[in-house]
Amino acid sequence: MIEPIGNQYIVARPVYSKNAFEEEHKKKHRNHKTFLDHLKACCSCSSQKAKRIAFSLFPIASWLPAYRIKEWLLSDIVSGISTGLVAVLQGLAFALLVTIPPSYGLYAAFFPVIIYFFLGTSKHISVGPFPVLSMMVGAVVTKLVPDTGTAAMNFSNSSTVDEQKVMVAATVTVLSGIIQLAMGVLRIGFVVIYLSDSLISGFTTAAAIHVLVSQLKFILQLTVPAHTDPFSIFKVLISIFTQIEDTNIADLVTSLVILLIVFVVKEINQRYKAKLPVPIPIELIMTVIATGVSYGFDFKNRFNVTVIGQMPSGFQPPITPDVQTFQDTIGDSFAIGIVGFAVAFSVASVYSLKYDYPIDGNQELIALGLGNIFSGSFRGFAASTSLSRSAVQESTGGKTQIAGIFSAIIVLIVIVAIGFLLEPLQKSVLAALALGNLKGMLMQFTEIRRLWRKDKYDCLIWIMTFIFAVVLGLGLGLAASVAFQLLTIVFRTQFPKCSTLANVGRSNIYKNKKDYADMYEPEGVKIFRCPSPIYFANISFFKRKLIDAVGFSPLRVLRKRNKALKKIRKLQKKGLLQVTPKGFIFTVDDLKESDEELDNNQIEELDQPINTTDLPFQIDWNADLPLDIVVPKIRLHSLILDFSAVSFLDVSSMRGIKTILQEFIRIKVDVYIVGTDDEFIEKLARCEFFDDEVKDSIFFLTIHDAVLHILMKKDSSTSKFNPSQEKDIKFDFTINTNGGLRNRECQVPVETKF
Amino acid sequence: MIEPIGNQYIVARPVYSKNAFEEEHKKKHRNHKTFLDHLKACCSCSSQKAKRIAFSLFPIASWLPAYRIKEWLLSDIVSGISTGLVAVLQGLAFALLVTIPPSYGLYAAFFPVIIYFFLGTSKHISVGPFPVLSMMVGAVVTKLVPDTGTAAMNFSNSSTVDEQKVMVAATVTVLSGIIQLAMGVLRIGFVVIYLSDSLISGFTTAAAIHVLVSQLKFILQLTVPAHTDPFSIFKVLISIFTQIEDTNIADLVTSLVILLIVFVVKEINQRYKAKLPVPIPIELIMTVIATGVSYGFDFKNRFNVTVIGQMPSGFQPPITPDVQTFQDTIGDSFAIGIVGFAVAFSVASVYSLKYDYPIDGNQELIALGLGNIFSGSFRGFAASTSLSRSAVQESTGGKTQIAGIFSAIIVLIVIVAIGFLLEPLQKSVLAALALGNLKGMLMQFTEIRRLWRKDKYDCLIWIMTFIFAVVLGLGLGLAASVAFQLLTIVFRTQFPKCSTLANVGRSNIYKNKKDYADMYEPEGVKIFRCPSPIYFANISFFKRKLIDAVGFSPLRVLRKRNKALKKIRKLQKKGLLQVTPKGFIFTVDDLKESDEELDNNQIEELDQPINTTDLPFQIDWNADLPLDIVVPKIRLHSLILDFSAVSFLDVSSMRGIKTILQEFIRIKVDVYIVGTDDEFIEKLARCEFFDDEVKDSIFFLTIHDAVLHILMKKDSSTSKFNPSQEKDIKFDFTINTNGGLRNRECQVPVETKF
Repeated sequence: MIEPIGNQYIVARPVYSKNAFEEEHKKKHRNHKTFLDHLKACCSCSSQKAKRIAFSLFPIASWLPAYRIKEWLLSDIVSGISTGLVAVLQGLAFALLVTIPPSYGLYAAFFPVIIYFFLGTSKHISVGPFPVLSMMVGAVVTKLVPDTGTAAMNFSNSSTVDEQKVMVAATVTVLSGIIQLAMGVLRIGFVVIYLSDSLISGFTTAAAIHVLVSQLKFILQLTVPAHTDPFSIFKVLISIFTQIEDTNIADLVTSLVILLIVFVVKEINQRYKAKLPVPIPIELIMTVIATGVSYGFDFKNRFNVTVIGQMPSGFQPPITPDVQTFQDTIGDSFAIGIVGFAVAFSVASVYSLKYDYPIDGNQELIALGLGNIFSGSFRGFAASTSLSRSAVQESTGGKTQIAGIFSAIIVLIVIVAIGFLLEPLQKSVLAALALGNLKGMLMQFTEIRRLWRKDKYDCLIWIMTFIFAVVLGLGLGLAASVAFQLLTIVFRTQFPKCSTLANVGRSNIYKNKKDYADMYEPEGVKIFRCPSPIYFANISFFKRKLIDAVGFSPLRVLRKRNKALKKIRKLQKKGLLQVTPKGFIFTVDDLKESDEELDNNQIEELDQPINTTDLPFQIDWNADLPLDIVVPKIRLHSLILDFSAVSFLDVSSMRGIKTILQEFIRIKVDVYIVGTDDEFIEKLARCEFFDDEVKDSIFFLTIHDAVLHILMKKDSSTSKFNPSQEKDIKFDFTINTNGGLRNRECQVPVETKF
Repeated sequence: MIEPIGNQYIVARPVYSKNAFEEEHKKKHRNHKTFLDHLKACCSCSSQKAKRIAFSLFPIASWLPAYRIKEWLLSDIVSGISTGLVAVLQGLAFALLVTIPPSYGLYAAFFPVIIYFFLGTSKHISVGPFPVLSMMVGAVVTKLVPDTGTAAMNFSNSSTVDEQKVMVAATVTVLSGIIQLAMGVLRIGFVVIYLSDSLISGFTTAAAIHVLVSQLKFILQLTVPAHTDPFSIFKVLISIFTQIEDTNIADLVTSLVILLIVFVVKEINQRYKAKLPVPIPIELIMTVIATGVSYGFDFKNRFNVTVIGQMPSGFQPPITPDVQTFQDTIGDSFAIGIVGFAVAFSVASVYSLKYDYPIDGNQELIALGLGNIFSGSFRGFAASTSLSRSAVQESTGGKTQIAGIFSAIIVLIVIVAIGFLLEPLQKSVLAALALGNLKGMLMQFTEIRRLWRKDKYDCLIWIMTFIFAVVLGLGLGLAASVAFQLLTIVFRTQFPKCSTLANVGRSNIYKNKKDYADMYEPEGVKIFRCPSPIYFANISFFKRKLIDAVGFSPLRVLRKRNKALKKIRKLQKKGLLQVTPKGFIFTVDDLKESDEELDNNQIEELDQPINTTDLPFQIDWNADLPLDIVVPKIRLHSLILDFSAVSFLDVSSMRGIKTILQEFIRIKVDVYIVGTDDEFIEKLARCEFFDDEVKDSIFFLTIHDAVLHILMKKDSSTSKFNPSQEKDIKFDFTINTNGGLRNRECQVPVETKF
C-alpha cells in the first residue's frame, strides 16, 4: 500500500540505476508471443469466431433486428423518397457523363443499393452513381468506342454504337467490382487507416470541386470533352471559358433560379429543424415544377434546351461482360475500384464520425465490389456514393439503409412505370439539383483556418490533398496525398525541440531551463532531453543540438588532448620534460618546436581513448599544462540524456548515438541515459550497443536518480571518501523542503532520521 | 542546492498537478522565434559568414594547407597511380557501355577529377565513369542515334554516326550537370538525410549487382542490348543465357584467371597490410602482363578476342552542347543527375563514416555538377564515382584528393602519350579487373543477418532497397526505396506496445505490470502507457488497447446507464417507483415491460452526460438497482494515461482522445494525463481540447503525483472529510520505506513530522 500523506509527495528510496533496481526487484520471465503464435491465434476456429465472421459478412443480421420501427421508419421513408428522387435525377445526369443513354443511369442507381442494404456497414451513405467515377468510366468508353471512326473493339457487327458503349461500361464496372471484392476478401481494406480526417476532408472537398466542374457543362449547355487525366480539370475549364458565349441562357437561368430556391429552402430546413416534422423535400418539388413548366411552355423547342428525352421502361436482360475488354481496361478498372472505394469510405467515415458507429473497410469493399459486379451484369455502371445524395439521405432524416431500400423502390417505380413523365425535364435542372447539395462539402474550406490554428501539419495535409486531388485527378491525387501524409509523420519528428533541463523547486522535478526563473543546474552537469524518436533522418540534427547544448564538440576536445599527450611524451623522450607522480618538471622554459612536426600520427589514432597508463599520474586536463600546451578546458563532468520520449531508435541512430557517447566518455564525461523502458535497453543490448566504454550501467530510472548519483559520486570523490564503505555509515541530516499544500506559502521542515 | 544523502532518493514536496505546479513556480515568458526571425538570421551577412561560405564552396582551401606531405604524399602517389590505371581501364570499358569509341572514356576519367579536386568534400572517392550511369547515357544515345536506320536527330549531315553519338552523350552529360548544379545551389542536397545507412548499404550492393551483370557481356564476349528500364536486368540475363554457347572461351579463361589472381593478391594485401610498405598494385601488373601476352601471342587473330583497338592520342576541341537535344533528354538527364549524385554520395558516406569526416551533400552536388558540365563540354560522358575504383583508391592508401590528381595525371599520360600501348588489351581483361574490386560491396550481403538480429525494420529496408534497386533499376529503385523507408517510420509507431503500469517497491516507480512480481496497483486505478506518438494511423489501435486494458467500453457503459435512468424516470412518472433522498421505494415487485418500449430515445441522447439533477440523490451505479434494471458494474474510478513518450498528437488523434476521455468522464471515471511537457498542453489548449468536461486540471507532473492525488481524494471522500479544510489540519505520520542502500537488505524507518 501507498499511504497518502495529506497533499504531500514523500518518497525515500535508494537511488536506482537500472541495474541496481533490477537487483532488488527481480523481473519476471515473460514469454513473448512469436509470429507463429499470432498465426495460430489468427487461424484458429471456433463457433464463436464463425458467428462473428458471419455477422461481419452480413451486417444486416445485426442491425435489422434492432430496428426501431416506430421511431425510425417514418424518417427512413421520407429520406428514402427524397434520396430516391435525387438518385433518379443523378442517375440520369451521370449516365450522360458515361456517354450512354440516360435510362442506364437508373440501373446504376438501383442494383448496387440492393446489395449494399445486405452487406454494407454504413447507415447513411447512398450508394449509386458518382459523377467523377462516371467520368472515369466515360473516358474508357470513349477510348474504346469512339463516336466517330471505326470502333477499336471487335464487337459483333450487329450491335449499335450505344450498345457497344453500354457493353464497355458494364465490363469495366464488373472488373472494378471484382478488384474491390478481391481487396475486401484479402483484407486490404486496412489501408483506410492511412486516410486521416484532414485528408478525407481535403479529398472530399476536391471531389466536390470536380463534381462542380463536371456539372457546369450541363448548366451552361456546352459540349466539353471528358477528361480524367492529371491536369484535365484545367482543360475542361479552358474549354468551358472559350465557349462561354455559346451558353444557353434559358438553361443558365433555370439552373440559377433552381439553385437559389434549393439553397434557401435547405437553409430553412436547417434553421427550423426542430419545428418541421420532416424537412421540405425541395428536390421533389422542384423536379415536378421544372418538368411541368418545361412541358407546359415547350422549352425544348422554344429555347432549344436539352431535355432528357426518350425513356424506355422496364429492365433489360443481363449481359456477360466481355473478357477481351478486361485486358484492355485492367488499369482503368483498378483506378475506378480504388477511387470508388476511397470516396465511399471517406463519405461513410464522415457520417460514422458524426454518429459514432464503426464502419469496416473490408466489408465496404466486399459490399461495393459485389454491388458493382451485380450492377454491371445488369448494364449499370460503376457505383460508389454521391456526396450530394448521401447528404440528402442524411439531412432528410435517414437513419439506416432502410432509407436506401426505399430510394431503390422509387428508382424501380421510375424504371418500370413513370419514367416517361421525366422526358421533358431539362438536363440543366438535374445539374442544378446535384449542385444544391454540395454546399456542405464545399463548406469544408473553413477547415483550413481551423486546422491552421490547431496543427500546421494537418493544415498542410488538407491543402496538399486538396491540390493533389484537384490537379492530378482523384486516383493519382489520392496516392500522392497518402504519400505526402506519411511524409508529414517524418517531418513531425525530424526536427525535435531538444531542450536542456534543470531542477525546479529543489525536488525531483526537471523542466526546460528556459521556462522557469529559479532553476538549479548542478555544476558540471547537463541534462539534455530529446522529445521524439531518433532515426536516420534526425540523428545528425540530434548530434548537432547536443553539441550546441554542451557547448563543445567532444571529438575536438579528445583530439586536442591526445595531441597534447603525444607532445608531452615526445618532450619526455627528448628529456625536456620529466613526469613524476607529483606532476611535470620542465627542463626548458620555452618550446620552439612547431606543431606540424609533432603530430606525425594519424587522425584515427587521435580519436582513440586517451591512454595514460604509462604516466605515473592522471593528467588534470582542466589545469594549466606546461610549455604552452593548450587544450580546451571543459567544466562538464556528467551528461544526462533524458530519453523518456524517444520511442524508438534505428540502426543508423544507434550507431550515431554510440559514437557520440564514446566521444564523451573518452574525455571523461560520464554519460547517463534515463527514462527509457526496459525493452529499449534490451534492444540496445541485442544490437551490441554496449562494450568496454559504453556500459549498460549508464541507465538510471529517472533524471533525479542520475543527478543524486552524480552528486554523491562527486561528494565522495572530493572528500576522499571511499564509496565502498558507505553502507556502514549512518547519516544524520535534515532536509528543508520548500513545499506545502497548494495556496499555502509556508515552509514545512521535514526531519528525516536514520 | 540538492544535498545528496548517501545513496538515498528522498523527496518531500507537495503533490503537483500541472496547474498547482505553475501556481508555485511561475513560468517565464519566452519569445519564440518567428519564421521571420529565422529568415533574418538566414539572410544576415557578416565577414565571418562570407568566409565560412567561401570555405564551404572551396573545401580545398581548408584541407590543402593542412596536408601532411611527409606522411601522406607517398601513399597518395601510390594510390593515385593504381587508381589512375584502373580509371584508364574503366574509362575504356565504360565507354563501350555508352556505345562510343573507348578513347572518349578517358576524357570522362580526366576532367571531372580536376573539378572535384577543388570542389569536392570527400577525400576517398574516385570521381569518373560509373558503369550504371554509362549504361543510362548509352540508352539515351541508342534511342536518339540508332546504329541502323535514319537518325532521330537532325544533325548536320557531315558528321558520322560516332560523332553524333558523342554529341548526344556530351549533351546529356552537360544537362545532368546543370541539374546537379542547380540542386546544389538551391541547397536541395539535404535530401540525402533520407538515405539511411541500411538504405545506402542495400543500394550500393544492388549497384554492384548491376555492374556485375553489365560486365558479364565483356567477360563472355556476347552482344547484349543496353537496357536501363525497370526489370531490364532480367532481360539482360535472359539475353546472356540464351547466347551462352557463343561464349568466347579465350576471353572467359583470361577473365577467370585474372579474377582469381586479383582476388588472391587482394587477400594478401589485406592480410599483410601491416608488413607491406604499399599494397601490391595488382591491377597495374595484370594490365601490363595481359597486354603483353595478348600482343605477343596475337590473341586477337588467334582466338578472335575483342581488343581495345585504335586509340587516337591527344585531346579534341570542346563542343557546344545541342540545345535541341536538351528538350528530348530532360527526363533522362534528371534521372542520370540524381542517380549519379546518389551513388557518389552513398559511396562517399561509406568512407566518411569509416574515417569520420563530414561530407556536404550540396557541395557534392555542385562539384559533380560542374565536373559534368566541364567534362561534357570536352566530349566526356556523365561521371559519378565507380565503387570499385574508389575501393582501389582507398585500399591502396589514398588519403586525400591529391591521389585523385595523380590518377588524373596517369589518365593524362595515357591520353597524350602511351594510349597506343593499350591497343592489344582484351576488353574482357578490363571487365575482370573491374569485377575484382567489387568484393567489398558484395560482401555487404552479410549485413542482412546482422541487421535482422538488430532491427527488423532496418533489415527490411536493406532487403527492399536491394530488391527495388536491382529490379526497378537504380533511378526508380532509389525513389521506391526512399518512399518505403519513410513508410517504415510510420510502421514503427503504428502498433505501439501499450502497457498497463503498476507500482514497484511502494515508492514512485511504475513499471509494466507483467514484468515484476510484487507490484501494487491501487484499487480502481488503471495506469496506461502509450510508448509512441499517437496520430491518424494508430488512434484506433490506441483506443482498442485502452479499452482492452480497462476491460470495458466506456461508451457501452454510458449508454446502459442512460437507458437505466430513462427507465427509472419512466417508472417514476407512472408512479411505480418513488425516488427519495434515501433511495428507491418500489411500489411493484416485478416489471413486465419490454426493453424496446422503454428506449424510445435516440442513440445520440444516450451518449450525452448522465444528468441526474432532477433526482434527489446520486445513483450508485455499482450497487444493485431496483426491478431488474441491470447496468454493468465497473470498479474503475481513475484512469492515468502516461503520455511521457507521446511526442506529438495530430488533429485526428486529438479528436479521438477527446472522445474517449469524455466517455470515461461521463461514467465518472477520473482521467489524468501525466508526463507531458508544457508545449504539449499548450497545443491541446490551442486546439480547443478542453471544455466543461475535459478540463486542463487533468494534467499531473508524474504518475506518482496522480496516484497520490487519487488516493488522497479517495481517502477524504470515504472519511467524509472536507478537502477544503485540509490546509488547516496537521498530520502525524510515519512512512515505512522498504528501501536501503544497494546490496543491503534492511528496512530504514523514516520518520517525518510536520
